[in-house]
Amino acid sequence: MAVTHDFRSDNTAGAAPEILDALARASSGGAPSYGADPWTARVQERIAALFETEVAVFPVATGTAANSLALAALTPPWGAVYCHTDSHIQGDECGAPELQTGGAKLIDLPGADGKLDPAILDTAIADTGAGSVHRIQPASVSLTQATEAGTVYSVEEVKAITAVARAHGLAVHMDGARFANALVTLGCSPADATWRAGVDVLTLGATKGGCLAAEAVVFFRPELARDFAFRRKRAGHLFSKMRFLSVQLEAWLQDDLWLRLARHANAMATRLARGLAGIEGAELIFPVQANEIFVRLPEPAIAVLERTGFGFYRWDGPLLRLVTSFDTPQAAVDDFIEIVRTAKKTA
Amino acid sequence: MAVTHDFRSDNTAGAAPEILDALARASSGGAPSYGADPWTARVQERIAALFETEVAVFPVATGTAANSLALAALTPPWGAVYCHTDSHIQGDECGAPELQTGGAKLIDLPGADGKLDPAILDTAIADTGAGSVHRIQPASVSLTQATEAGTVYSVEEVKAITAVARAHGLAVHMDGARFANALVTLGCSPADATWRAGVDVLTLGATKGGCLAAEAVVFFRPELARDFAFRRKRAGHLFSKMRFLSVQLEAWLQDDLWLRLARHANAMATRLARGLAGIEGAELIFPVQANEIFVRLPEPAIAVLERTGFGFYRWDGPLLRLVTSFDTPQAAVDDFIEIVRTAKKTA
Amino acid sequence: MAVTHDFRSDNTAGAAPEILDALARASSGGAPSYGADPWTARVQERIAALFETEVAVFPVATGTAANSLALAALTPPWGAVYCHTDSHIQGDECGAPELQTGGAKLIDLPGADGKLDPAILDTAIADTGAGSVHRIQPASVSLTQATEAGTVYSVEEVKAITAVARAHGLAVHMDGARFANALVTLGCSPADATWRAGVDVLTLGATKGGCLAAEAVVFFRPELARDFAFRRKRAGHLFSKMRFLSVQLEAWLQDDLWLRLARHANAMATRLARGLAGIEGAELIFPVQANEIFVRLPEPAIAVLERTGFGFYRWDGPLLRLVTSFDTPQAAVDDFIEIVRTAKKTA
Amino acid sequence: MAVTHDFRSDNTAGAAPEILDALARASSGGAPSYGADPWTARVQERIAALFETEVAVFPVATGTAANSLALAALTPPWGAVYCHTDSHIQGDECGAPELQTGGAKLIDLPGADGKLDPAILDTAIADTGAGSVHRIQPASVSLTQATEAGTVYSVEEVKAITAVARAHGLAVHMDGARFANALVTLGCSPADATWRAGVDVLTLGATKGGCLAAEAVVFFRPELARDFAFRRKRAGHLFSKMRFLSVQLEAWLQDDLWLRLARHANAMATRLARGLAGIEGAELIFPVQANEIFVRLPEPAIAVLERTGFGFYRWDGPLLRLVTSFDTPQAAVDDFIEIVRTAKKTA
Repeated sequence: MAVTHDFRSDNTAGAAPEILDALARASSGGAPSYGADPWTARVQERIAALFETEVAVFPVATGTAANSLALAALTPPWGAVYCHTDSHIQGDECGAPELQTGGAKLIDLPGADGKLDPAILDTAIADTGAGSVHRIQPASVSLTQATEAGTVYSVEEVKAITAVARAHGLAVHMDGARFANALVTLGCSPADATWRAGVDVLTLGATKGGCLAAEAVVFFRPELARDFAFRRKRAGHLFSKMRFLSVQLEAWLQDDLWLRLARHANAMATRLARGLAGIEGAELIFPVQANEIFVRLPEPAIAVLERTGFGFYRWDGPLLRLVTSFDTPQAAVDDFIEIVRTAKKTA
Repeated sequence: MAVTHDFRSDNTAGAAPEILDALARASSGGAPSYGADPWTARVQERIAALFETEVAVFPVATGTAANSLALAALTPPWGAVYCHTDSHIQGDECGAPELQTGGAKLIDLPGADGKLDPAILDTAIADTGAGSVHRIQPASVSLTQATEAGTVYSVEEVKAITAVARAHGLAVHMDGARFANALVTLGCSPADATWRAGVDVLTLGATKGGCLAAEAVVFFRPELARDFAFRRKRAGHLFSKMRFLSVQLEAWLQDDLWLRLARHANAMATRLARGLAGIEGAELIFPVQANEIFVRLPEPAIAVLERTGFGFYRWDGPLLRLVTSFDTPQAAVDDFIEIVRTAKKTA
Repeated sequence: MAVTHDFRSDNTAGAAPEILDALARASSGGAPSYGADPWTARVQERIAALFETEVAVFPVATGTAANSLALAALTPPWGAVYCHTDSHIQGDECGAPELQTGGAKLIDLPGADGKLDPAILDTAIADTGAGSVHRIQPASVSLTQATEAGTVYSVEEVKAITAVARAHGLAVHMDGARFANALVTLGCSPADATWRAGVDVLTLGATKGGCLAAEAVVFFRPELARDFAFRRKRAGHLFSKMRFLSVQLEAWLQDDLWLRLARHANAMATRLARGLAGIEGAELIFPVQANEIFVRLPEPAIAVLERTGFGFYRWDGPLLRLVTSFDTPQAAVDDFIEIVRTAKKTA
Repeated sequence: MAVTHDFRSDNTAGAAPEILDALARASSGGAPSYGADPWTARVQERIAALFETEVAVFPVATGTAANSLALAALTPPWGAVYCHTDSHIQGDECGAPELQTGGAKLIDLPGADGKLDPAILDTAIADTGAGSVHRIQPASVSLTQATEAGTVYSVEEVKAITAVARAHGLAVHMDGARFANALVTLGCSPADATWRAGVDVLTLGATKGGCLAAEAVVFFRPELARDFAFRRKRAGHLFSKMRFLSVQLEAWLQDDLWLRLARHANAMATRLARGLAGIEGAELIFPVQANEIFVRLPEPAIAVLERTGFGFYRWDGPLLRLVTSFDTPQAAVDDFIEIVRTAKKTA
């Protein structure tokens, strides 16, 4: 049946009006193609200013492209990428990092609340066998911020991970498909959340945050980006009418729009989590720190929700994943809670 | 200096208003992600209807993605792709086909007016050494319609090429970055221009034709597309908010918009070519059959054009490439002609 | 110091005299290159006869080549290979399967005694998400016989694994670097140990078993080998003077030499294990069923062994791996036991 | 029918007795595996001494492996390798360089007598479009010494090629499958023939020159070899019983054996060429400077040769390729000439 209240994902939402308006405005007149346009130049400057450092920025259209190309810049074909078992690069990109790196190996590691554990990471790297020709060689660490579990690494937690990576000579990638959601939770500066905490390359995701299709690969050590332009082109991710990619990022980063949109999504998740927390039979699985909620609900409640047009994914039986977005109406959240509360009573 | 009259490329243009409007309309409300949305379903149906046959359609955002993924569906890592020396896949995609195929080899062949020559193609395939384990194996032929020279293969010419391919057991790909421009020149049906003439897979380009970033890989033999969805995802070319890709194609194909836009671009090119043809010292290099003109002009004329804000690329010294697009103003064409005529006189 | 009693590996041994003699005999006279020689034809026939079925046989020189090319024949770039955590393909080939498959993913699974566990395998395959475009696709299972733990799957255990694979539509590869050692333990026919138990492709390793450098990739379903010749050539594993590769295999399989050599290696391992089993402080870790022993010894005993010219690898502190080979002298085994017994007493 | 006089190739010959003897001697006793053995160390030293410079040496078993891995060390996936149209890497390795480089492109160039032409090379590199993101990037030049046409570049000719490469910042690979044959023709030192003439990496081929299967990748700039050990292992080209590879090279280079063997092969080719040159109807196509002869013969002569047990390949109709080797008997050469002379007369 038709989904009227959408908690399936933040990528089932459309785009924010500000983005669409900017897109339309960017269309008039000729502009150099393939990134030599003024929008792309301004995005580079904007991100440098926001992150308070020199950066090399490459807009692409999908998170999978951003992640896999970024990892390829850090990892040789015989390299190892350390990541969480539940990370998107490991489980949801159909082997994209393997394609772009030329066959590197992802070493997936367990960790509570969707987060890498520094001790487990340290052991895993040490056990890989750096220097032995029989072994793949430790090359990079990828952590996801906010995580796939809807949690947020504290800055200290990020530092603990990057310190392990650094101690072994590895580069650090942050998959920030929901970086904005994490940032508003952290309340710190973008710089503090990334390169000052030891991150070398960030996938700055804007698609889930209100754009149509736009991500920026942000290198905080521009020397790592030396070959990136060739990798991007070769992978088919250099847009001819690049302005339409860049203008999305420009508008999204303008006047804190990205933070406002993320703040709303997070607020809706928090409101939903708090509402559900008070209901007997509803069990939250992870701390709700961004815009994703993992909650076990009674089947009768789930049945009513489904009948009523609520959309969500069953992660595992009665364990649901609920995702809020920049345009989730508060009424949908309140209705959700009310249905669970009521269904529970009548069940 | 600023380009005010743009003949640099059809990808320096913006997007057609109809496309932007459709994009904005598509944004409201939730929609399943990754292509399970109604826009994507309708594009599939629309293309099937337009081409009067069963098709498997995969929207992607760039021509390089479309071409390289299509070729990968036809060509094993040890396969040979036969193409024209001046083809985009050979010279302008930084090795994208090699990436997606896992290292296949492009055999580039000469041919007048940017077109493959059936006899040269036949010899080249025969000489490759099919069956010998030392040799790469003939796998596919890729022809570009309209060509990089701004010419258009007649249907008979396409058939001559595909007949050679078929005789050797090879599949045929058509790079249709400017397919619409070719189609309005041919005046035949999309089906006659493609699968009825022996084409197996078409890159149906909409970006240059008035979209922001949208191409469709169209398989006329759907069994060839069996693995394509995995290839596309793995390459980072599956959009999460797919509706924004599909709606561009939908709007572009609606009510013959694509043909109207292409017709305008072609008309401007024809007008420009005819105007230049009458001027002493202006030498057209190829027949002008789509929206590209290759013309040798006197340097004094070029100097005036450059000073006056005309944008174009020098292909080789005084040999210019001029490209018209869906929004090239007739006045710009006429001004161009007038400047060449006048500059010639005064030089 | 110099190793005089070598238990480091079965690849630290030289070659059996019968192999060297055959090699020298094969050198006289001209022979067609690249596998069109009579030795290669005879190896194909010999293996077909030994395994009592039609086979496609491809000699190569290393186990890594054999394994990775075999897996590439079974697994697309977006495919998953299920294997044991301690398998050679996962831990000791520097990502060779990833190179040859074009970036497939190895899913490594735990299992007692170095063996895959059918239930764990079944769950892992089911959890991969076959059919979802976001997920790599289950493609093949690789099991090692004898295992890296020196154990041997019973025929029933092999069948249990291949039944799981078959139920999910996956192909089965057996890494038989020490297949001969397993076979003499099993005491069954080569056919019963492989294709009759559900194995599709076997890496038949002869290097460790007494050759210089020779392995055979044996396809029991020849249709799977359709592209193998191209893969092998392209990977640089087609020898020009192929007779020198094939004659090793021919001589090794002649008159049960391969089984005699393996029987000796196994007998030495058994003798060593039995000898150590009776000594206090010596702890065998896995059942000794082939030619590898994993044993924890008291450090004083290890020190004496090292001083006395015994060669072996420390797997983890006082946990040693001892490997016997076709030419391990019985005296070396007895001396080893005696030293451990004595050192223990005097410690 | 059986070939009794073999001019098919230098890889249809067996191995020199000295090599077989050394192989047998190397088999006794244990030795560290994977290249940590003394034979491998000595080969490294021997080659350094012979070439009078610091080198990094990697033995592998096939020329295809040596060439493709060497090129991968010099060429990124988006790189261009410039080579002769008739080179082995371009036409006879089934795309091996493309596999090992991750999809680089070979730019094949014409040139008289099987040799690259400096002017054509210079233009080709300049035309590639270094720095443009749309273009593959010039990376390396590969020249074959002796060439596939049986000719030998003079040292000055090599320098002319490497100077062009150096001017564009490219590395230089020499495919020396028949380097020994070239060297005895040149009469200069190995150093003068290679690194002093600007060569960075040499495939030093020993298989055709009398070994069973042995080639050495020799880096004259060891910093280029930084990743080579991982590439070799990952490609399955690191032998476990490496001594058997290295001892071939050691014996081959000992006491000028390699030069003596090559000298014989060349002498037989020269004798054959001289003999044929005097016969009406026999037309030599290229200068005979190594151990290959390309000659057009009257069909009646060819028919008699074939009937009499002479083996050779028809390159194109009555154009034959004749290859001599270290063990070509002088009588076979003289018989060949006599048959051609006689058949001509009687025809």
